[in-house]
Amino acid sequence: MNSSIIRFVLGNVLKIEAVLMLLPCLVAVIYSEPVGLYYLGVALFCFLLGMLMTHRKPKNLVFYLKEGCVATSLSWIFLSFFGALPFWLSGEIPSLTDALFETISGFTTTGASILDNVEVLTHTALFWRSFTHWIGGMGVLVFLMAIIPLSGGSNINLMRAESPGPSVGKLVPKMKYTARILYFIYFGMTILELVLLMAGKMPLFDALATSMGTAGTGGFGIKADSMSGYSPYLQWVTTIFMILFGVNFNAYYFLLFHNFKKAFGMEEVRYYFGIIAAAIAIIFFETIGTYGGAFKTLTHASFQVASIITTTGFSTVDFNYWSQASKTVLVLLMFIGACAGSTGGGIKVSRFVVLVKTLGRELTSYIHPRSIKKIKCDGKPVEHEVVRSINVYFITFMIIFSASVLAVSFEDKDLITSFTAVAATINNIGPGLELVGPAQNFGLFHPFTKYVLMFDMLAGRLELFPLLILFHPAIWRDLFTQRFTSRKQQ
Amino acid sequence: MNSSIIRFVLGNVLKIEAVLMLLPCLVAVIYSEPVGLYYLGVALFCFLLGMLMTHRKPKNLVFYLKEGCVATSLSWIFLSFFGALPFWLSGEIPSLTDALFETISGFTTTGASILDNVEVLTHTALFWRSFTHWIGGMGVLVFLMAIIPLSGGSNINLMRAESPGPSVGKLVPKMKYTARILYFIYFGMTILELVLLMAGKMPLFDALATSMGTAGTGGFGIKADSMSGYSPYLQWVTTIFMILFGVNFNAYYFLLFHNFKKAFGMEEVRYYFGIIAAAIAIIFFETIGTYGGAFKTLTHASFQVASIITTTGFSTVDFNYWSQASKTVLVLLMFIGACAGSTGGGIKVSRFVVLVKTLGRELTSYIHPRSIKKIKCDGKPVEHEVVRSINVYFITFMIIFSASVLAVSFEDKDLITSFTAVAATINNIGPGLELVGPAQNFGLFHPFTKYVLMFDMLAGRLELFPLLILFHPAIWRDLFTQRFTSRKQQ
Repeated sequence: MNSSIIRFVLGNVLKIEAVLMLLPCLVAVIYSEPVGLYYLGVALFCFLLGMLMTHRKPKNLVFYLKEGCVATSLSWIFLSFFGALPFWLSGEIPSLTDALFETISGFTTTGASILDNVEVLTHTALFWRSFTHWIGGMGVLVFLMAIIPLSGGSNINLMRAESPGPSVGKLVPKMKYTARILYFIYFGMTILELVLLMAGKMPLFDALATSMGTAGTGGFGIKADSMSGYSPYLQWVTTIFMILFGVNFNAYYFLLFHNFKKAFGMEEVRYYFGIIAAAIAIIFFETIGTYGGAFKTLTHASFQVASIITTTGFSTVDFNYWSQASKTVLVLLMFIGACAGSTGGGIKVSRFVVLVKTLGRELTSYIHPRSIKKIKCDGKPVEHEVVRSINVYFITFMIIFSASVLAVSFEDKDLITSFTAVAATINNIGPGLELVGPAQNFGLFHPFTKYVLMFDMLAGRLELFPLLILFHPAIWRDLFTQRFTSRKQQ
Repeated sequence: MNSSIIRFVLGNVLKIEAVLMLLPCLVAVIYSEPVGLYYLGVALFCFLLGMLMTHRKPKNLVFYLKEGCVATSLSWIFLSFFGALPFWLSGEIPSLTDALFETISGFTTTGASILDNVEVLTHTALFWRSFTHWIGGMGVLVFLMAIIPLSGGSNINLMRAESPGPSVGKLVPKMKYTARILYFIYFGMTILELVLLMAGKMPLFDALATSMGTAGTGGFGIKADSMSGYSPYLQWVTTIFMILFGVNFNAYYFLLFHNFKKAFGMEEVRYYFGIIAAAIAIIFFETIGTYGGAFKTLTHASFQVASIITTTGFSTVDFNYWSQASKTVLVLLMFIGACAGSTGGGIKVSRFVVLVKTLGRELTSYIHPRSIKKIKCDGKPVEHEVVRSINVYFITFMIIFSASVLAVSFEDKDLITSFTAVAATINNIGPGLELVGPAQNFGLFHPFTKYVLMFDMLAGRLELFPLLILFHPAIWRDLFTQRFTSRKQQ
């Protein structure tokens, strides 16, 4: 394995994090909060360490899928570890485990918090929390590719490891430009939401935190009651932007280049809107009468559906008190998740479309055993290999999910808490039901459970395999053998 | 589609049911219960209807997978409908829906009951309930093949549709003899359990009902407290036989012909025992202290684990009160289920072995992208097509499962009740948790929910696809077009 390129990538990631951490420092200056010094200190340390790691350029710039996966997982672990340091050093989150949980939850755009009152945090800390969502939403390595000229074509392996969804579409032949276009759309939409929120008289700081949380489909609130204190206008703006950030970004790319037919013809996006409409309809009829007035009910139903399916995790009501059917719909939405190629988590709509079509094809094969029909998506046949890898993804997901629920259940919390705590973290949502409901937090868990859930958050964000292979003995054998051999050669 | 052969099979199934129903008539005579007359009446009616349907032999005896599936599903629906009539006509179960639920639960070897006190039933009804388990355990069509000479080789399609597990192994070249060997083993083991139970001073009637319930991995009790009133000896005999009936019957075939190496080398069976041991160990340590004494704890832990993994559903304690980890283990066991080729339900151990190996192979492919390694089971490579169909089975299972939980959730019972009610029926177990726990019953549900659960029981027992294709429009189009064409030809 080419471990020097992994070192080089990690070093660059640290340098980027150092630069990004200057933003909370700026916030600290504005609000004159001395806590900013911790951020500055960690930023400096990251920068120096990053410089050290990137000092020697790797000779060999070739990047295979294996290196892509290892580099990606380690990048996210590094990012989270150094990102957690200011919380811990400043004492705002006294336990390192908790600080790590909060930061991983931020970068993976989960939004599950261990804090029971966020309103006591400094502006600096609140900003950094929300900013991690924004960074994590699009991914750091995509950013890296947008700005740093890595080796020619092989960095698709980096992007494949970091991007949500079953297949990475290159929008334009050069990955560098694809990455830039994605960031341009991402940035533009965030600014648009910010402006619309401020037009609804939301204070700048709140609007900034909310937009960043929406864009990354994160869900950290800066108020104890999440979004319930804001006006219906602000709630609707957030609802619409949550839904928009859950759309496959390829659609925006097509729109940007006036290819309306392709943009509106995307099957995944149409199913996505169909599922949202159906879920809102069910919950609307189940909760009507609870909030007095159809419009209020529609507002709450839409907000919660948008928040859960896009895996954002903001809330305007405590859906723990909803009817069982409504809660079941929300739990199902947790697993479905947003579109591939969006900033959202979950299993992804496109995977479910293929899974359901697989079922249909199997039934047909019982009736016409000799017909070999390929599954079609967007009018084009889907390659067997893609179908197979989606099947395997689903299976792996369910295995990790079940194992995690079992591990968490040793806490002796009720089954719904264990089940939805894992569902809310592996799908990168945030709130679950019962003890991890929207009005609760994850602080009550034992450190062991917290580490299980951190693993789930990372596994969910990185689409399982890049993280899993870190636990494969061959990788470690490979790393150590190579180090040993290269020393001998010197 | 060859609908005349389907008619022929259905007619034969009805005749078999008529004969089988004479046994409860005998019980009625012994206990001089006038209720037996209803059984006699229904038996006569079934026989006449069966004669009418089999009067004209089909010209074409060719049987494709499609006909196999349709014949199997319809057979089970016919069996259940006519089997339910005596309960309903005699007034012992006043509602037809409930009678149908109880009978489907019996034939599918689920053992979920709508009755809140079984001890008020007549011996005749109790016997019929337990007898349906015994019939359903091995399957009626297997029985049909054992006694009636159907068309040559193509009745493997019937067996494939009815037998649990991913692939049907022909033990001997002729299906007829395979079926006979299976019934011989089944019968022998049932008698052995009966004798051992009676040796422990269990009354004959109880021993008969218990053996039949164990053999079919059914779980209908004849006592309100299931098995908790019996002595530890009787509980251990039942535990051991539950586990034995959950073993792949091929292992017994090998033993019967002194092929010990093959019998003990079966990978699925070894994993099956490994899972049982691990589950007992966890539950033992979680519940120790609850029942006073290690032996008692071990007895209860083993009994419940055996009962759930083999999908039998007897109980000696109310595991609703166990720790969350123990309950989570039980819920996971519900889905794993017994071995393929046994009388048990669930997804089956062999499928899980392949699923876990699929995950492992996928990980390896990330590290060595060009290696094409086949998954191996029992030392032999598993065909891609088998792996694919197991993947699809799992996906279909999860889709039906989720849709059922959603449908059931409209009852507004708590999530654990809805979730485990579906899990306990689709996996053919019987008891779930909370409102459908071992000390509860399914009578509380709305008729709509009961029909959903009946569908799940049948789908689970028939391994999904044979039942699902009944809902495929092509089947109905086919049936009607053909009838229309054949009339025109006459």
